[in-house]
Amino acid sequence: MVQYQTVDMTLAALADPTRRGILERLGRGGEASVSELAEPVGISLTGMKKHLRVLEEAGLVRTEKVGRTRRCRLEPKGLDGLAAWMDSYRAMLEERFDRLEELLERTKGDTS
Amino acid sequence: MVQYQTVDMTLAALADPTRRGILERLGRGGEASVSELAEPVGISLTGMKKHLRVLEEAGLVRTEKVGRTRRCRLEPKGLDGLAAWMDSYRAMLEERFDRLEELLERTKGDTS
Repeated sequence: MVQYQTVDMTLAALADPTRRGILERLGRGGEASVSELAEPVGISLTGMKKHLRVLEEAGLVRTEKVGRTRRCRLEPKGLDGLAAWMDSYRAMLEERFDRLEELLERTKGDTS
Repeated sequence: MVQYQTVDMTLAALADPTRRGILERLGRGGEASVSELAEPVGISLTGMKKHLRVLEEAGLVRTEKVGRTRRCRLEPKGLDGLAAWMDSYRAMLEERFDRLEELLERTKGDTS
């Protein structure tokens, strides 16, 4: 259940364009403070802190207090659980289509 | 913005282990009726219909009324938007690490 819970949190954290924007911003620019993240998108510091907390709890972002500012950066392993689920889901789909294709080929053989 | 909205809906639909379970069940077993999906996991028909509606609106499942039953099956293209976002996000991360590695190599060169 632990793994499922993590995938749940990753998915819920990502299901918000503002939070995906934060990840993209941190990916492009590296570290940033809370206000550096908040200002260009016109979000209050309190609002940005809430988004960062969700991303941090989902393991997608790491934050660290340096003096009076909180520095934020990506946690690169954060998507691993979700990626693993998607890989196994897609593998299952492919297997399914291979079976359907096989069936179709066999049916074609019958009618020709 | 349309693409973002779709990814939002995909992510929100997937952020629930019951709904991911439905997808896995449909992937393994092909088509199923609402009650065939509901029974083994001990969910009411009304509850299952709600989950299916979320999955259908997110483009992950297709349902079709056949006589008195509603047949459900996977919509295989449903994950494409999310997969595209994840691919571009991971490509960005990799590029970033390549840059960091380069920097590290250069720094090593300076001290040796």
